[in-house]
Amino acid sequence: MAYWITWKSDFVFESNFIYLLFNPVQAMAELKNDRFLRALLRQDVDVTPVWMMRQAGRYLPEYREVRQQAGDFMSLCQNPELACEVTLQPLRRYALDAAILFSDILTIPDAMGLGLYFAQGEGPKFRKPVRSAADVEALKVTSAEKDLPYVLDAVKLIRQELNGSVPLIGFSGSPWTVATYMVEGGSSKEFSHIKSMMMNTPEVMHQLLDTLAQSVIDYLNAQILAGVQAVQIFDTWGGALSAHAYQVFSLDYMKKIVSGLIREHEGRRIPVILFTKNGGHWLEQIITSDCDCVGLDWTLPINEARARIGDKVSLQGNMDPAVLYGGAHAIRQEVGFILEQFGHGNGHVFNLGHGIHQHVNPDHVSVFVDAVHELSAQYHA
Amino acid sequence: MAYWITWKSDFVFESNFIYLLFNPVQAMAELKNDRFLRALLRQDVDVTPVWMMRQAGRYLPEYREVRQQAGDFMSLCQNPELACEVTLQPLRRYALDAAILFSDILTIPDAMGLGLYFAQGEGPKFRKPVRSAADVEALKVTSAEKDLPYVLDAVKLIRQELNGSVPLIGFSGSPWTVATYMVEGGSSKEFSHIKSMMMNTPEVMHQLLDTLAQSVIDYLNAQILAGVQAVQIFDTWGGALSAHAYQVFSLDYMKKIVSGLIREHEGRRIPVILFTKNGGHWLEQIITSDCDCVGLDWTLPINEARARIGDKVSLQGNMDPAVLYGGAHAIRQEVGFILEQFGHGNGHVFNLGHGIHQHVNPDHVSVFVDAVHELSAQYHA
Repeated sequence: MAYWITWKSDFVFESNFIYLLFNPVQAMAELKNDRFLRALLRQDVDVTPVWMMRQAGRYLPEYREVRQQAGDFMSLCQNPELACEVTLQPLRRYALDAAILFSDILTIPDAMGLGLYFAQGEGPKFRKPVRSAADVEALKVTSAEKDLPYVLDAVKLIRQELNGSVPLIGFSGSPWTVATYMVEGGSSKEFSHIKSMMMNTPEVMHQLLDTLAQSVIDYLNAQILAGVQAVQIFDTWGGALSAHAYQVFSLDYMKKIVSGLIREHEGRRIPVILFTKNGGHWLEQIITSDCDCVGLDWTLPINEARARIGDKVSLQGNMDPAVLYGGAHAIRQEVGFILEQFGHGNGHVFNLGHGIHQHVNPDHVSVFVDAVHELSAQYHA
Repeated sequence: MAYWITWKSDFVFESNFIYLLFNPVQAMAELKNDRFLRALLRQDVDVTPVWMMRQAGRYLPEYREVRQQAGDFMSLCQNPELACEVTLQPLRRYALDAAILFSDILTIPDAMGLGLYFAQGEGPKFRKPVRSAADVEALKVTSAEKDLPYVLDAVKLIRQELNGSVPLIGFSGSPWTVATYMVEGGSSKEFSHIKSMMMNTPEVMHQLLDTLAQSVIDYLNAQILAGVQAVQIFDTWGGALSAHAYQVFSLDYMKKIVSGLIREHEGRRIPVILFTKNGGHWLEQIITSDCDCVGLDWTLPINEARARIGDKVSLQGNMDPAVLYGGAHAIRQEVGFILEQFGHGNGHVFNLGHGIHQHVNPDHVSVFVDAVHELSAQYHA
């Protein structure tokens, strides 16, 4: 693994060297809870595994404390110790079946030099949006080793700290989704700049997406080599496209990524989860990407998704995050409903249909996570 | 029609009285172009009719001029002469097959006294958001005659000015969609307040939705009696719900509305269009509302929608509004593609999948509208 040959300090080098001698890759702390990885591969599990998108986040007071300590959001991402700390926080509170690397989908364009910053209450912004052929031409494919070492350091540290308790998920934004922020210069409702680029200079659009796809392949493979045990591609804005534009400008690049990924490491398959928010109409297209699992938002009932593609991939989802505003009874009822919809058998990773909201009461998350485990046992008997 | 018994001034009364004597309702100027109404009812047409959501709007310089003259947005809505003027503007430029009343989906909560205003670049806001049972209890069902006379005056004036050239569409927001603004106090991404209300006090949520549904029935019927020839219910935010929540909190109230509407007037059926943005998964549920037409956004290919429900209702849509950023060739190509997807036969009203964007070049709209007429003739031969 890349980590072990990174010269960080005499002490680290020496301790790693000794570790290497006596603990080859295969000897990493054995995974105690592999429900998540098994469910992704549609293997038997005792109960349905559960994790939450943005489980390390602002709804937790201990996160807000570390975030304040770090200063701005990117400083938190770039500090491996603090990133490790916030990654682990939700696992101390809840019986989650996976950890997910704390980072952001915009680390790659930040490493490309576009000047990412987070304006108070406004989401991500870029000082230098990408608007022209010359802007795109100037972008270089990133190397995670060289340009994003802090992410890989965080992965290694988290794996060490997890000590085999649960698997660690790595992730990246999809090329289309990352490009929307780069071209719009931040969040968008109508995507007027990037869709203009798509309509008027498709060749420039493709060049940008290709540069991003190459960067993502390198980035996710480096995460895998550093220790993540599954990867998710977040295509938050693919659902803003028409079906045919989605195929050409989003899915084709995710396919390219999946085909370039290391699919086995540490003697285990590395499952790939592809999540296009609002992509429920395109499930049959999505599974041609050779992903192992498709993430679902809450608009498509999971039984319909299962009927369409459940014999080929596993499904992740799909509770409306807003259900967590409800009381214990309402939360348990909704969890029970979704489990019943999925029905008996394997291939379900429980999750929210999008990230957990900032103003959710952390106590409600305990109810949620415990309900998934408790109410799902009957479907795996 | 209600108009003729409204005592506005001696002159108006007198002239209307004379009009009434010699021009009973049936004698309103005969409709010269009824393609739109015929297509809604899946009857034969020579070419596919086309209109655009928000066709009277900011992309037109002449609209921006009138808007400036009116002052703020609501003053424009509340001035029948100016509302009529902006309604007619796009028809002077383009060969559109329908006019749509210029108004807003938030006129009802404004009439309820919630203090609607439009902050610069921030969309609609309410000074008094609805958050508690007491807030909901205090709301009264509106009467269009008493509370929204400016809308009905605008309808009458527009019908007069259209003089039978094309039909006039009336509209309302869906109860759920209108409620999102009332409860959130404005636009929202996560709908945390209204979804909290839905989860924690569903009875309060239902009371609010019921008050709105009753108001909408009265409002749309008054528009019909004043002269609109088709109505559309805009459910912009129904697609933020899960399938089962959509049924209970959005669709059931739209069903109630449809069942309370006047369905025939001036000797013609008044077609009802139901448009839930992001509702493509629920088409089979939506048509149980007894609507005549289902509006589609651009995420679901129209051939798939037709295969699912095209034998029961007509379909309206479904080009991504962002296609209008493209050049003439790209626009014609996309129009041709959608027409080909729909295929031969009746029951298609061409439209964008959502409102036209503010920064579209008005010349591109000519290309679009003409392309629909020109390229669709072959499918109606």
